[in-house]
Amino acid sequence: MDTLTDPHILPVELTKAYRLLNHGPTVLVSARHGGVDNVMAAAWACALDFNPPKVTVVLDKAVKTRALVEASGMFVLQVPNAAQVDLVHAVGTHSLADEPDKLARFGVQLFDAPEIDAPLVAGCSAWLACRRVAEPHNEQAYDLFIGEVVAAWADSRVFRDGHWHFEDADPRWRSLHYIAGGQFYAIGESLRAAD
Amino acid sequence: MDTLTDPHILPVELTKAYRLLNHGPTVLVSARHGGVDNVMAAAWACALDFNPPKVTVVLDKAVKTRALVEASGMFVLQVPNAAQVDLVHAVGTHSLADEPDKLARFGVQLFDAPEIDAPLVAGCSAWLACRRVAEPHNEQAYDLFIGEVVAAWADSRVFRDGHWHFEDADPRWRSLHYIAGGQFYAIGESLRAAD
Repeated sequence: MDTLTDPHILPVELTKAYRLLNHGPTVLVSARHGGVDNVMAAAWACALDFNPPKVTVVLDKAVKTRALVEASGMFVLQVPNAAQVDLVHAVGTHSLADEPDKLARFGVQLFDAPEIDAPLVAGCSAWLACRRVAEPHNEQAYDLFIGEVVAAWADSRVFRDGHWHFEDADPRWRSLHYIAGGQFYAIGESLRAAD
Repeated sequence: MDTLTDPHILPVELTKAYRLLNHGPTVLVSARHGGVDNVMAAAWACALDFNPPKVTVVLDKAVKTRALVEASGMFVLQVPNAAQVDLVHAVGTHSLADEPDKLARFGVQLFDAPEIDAPLVAGCSAWLACRRVAEPHNEQAYDLFIGEVVAAWADSRVFRDGHWHFEDADPRWRSLHYIAGGQFYAIGESLRAAD
């Protein structure tokens, strides 16, 4: 597995990490335990705090990734893009439990980041490495997991200087916003409110 | 105050209500107690369950709307649109505590829905009326509120038959996705994943 060597991928200041999720993109959730890596899609992920940055994500009891998160205490939320729409839908609708070769079959390439015991998905626009904040009641009653963001990165071709640059980047970089039945919206034009 | 009489506004089946939030729009949160109405903006709102539908929303201890929700046990999440970008930013950056005429000043018009003890904001694309599910630990430790959706409506010019129709509607109906500093993105084009 490759390590984080792509020169386009730069660290994001932790106090700006919420901006990677603030516009509500569908994410990929990845985790690792006992030599098993998995990746799933999640539309129900959200920023929870600025500093230290925290996130929420809903992980159903049926998904394999949840068991990996419970065992390892780590997960990565990554922001995929329009070029990955088929991959996002495929990993969101196929289970590692039924298809042990799921990641290879759908062309998911992983890489490692220093000191993060979870895999990162290549080709995404941004990554938030999270340490699970154990809240057993939320996890059992609501499938709701809380993570503290311990490191974040973004591809500088679409996020740099603390801001998304969707309007200047190739449309392949636009974030994905899932509805249902294989239908997504890409993020659109920038709008600025009057002061 | 008007009641829900606009013929464009139709009920949304509760099992489809998650689709109103699934693409991660910035929302307006409204609540009422003791004769006081308030409306705030929130980027950190998310679907939590399908059936019965539940949502999460982060309400900081400093915001007046939180006190109204705590007192009344109800709130409405509404999905505003590009035509309302200035209103959304204004109610998100001004406090009722400092400006008692906040709603009038920013042109926020409210209406009522039957049996919902919280105001709805006119001109939005969709509304989810929620009953607070009391979770004191989440509320104190994380400012995280959970609501069960008890009724939902959408403007049929942009959401009908259980689906958003951003691609066919006037661009004024596009949902807003906040980043920071008064900058939003509108939702963009529809993308369909390969089966």
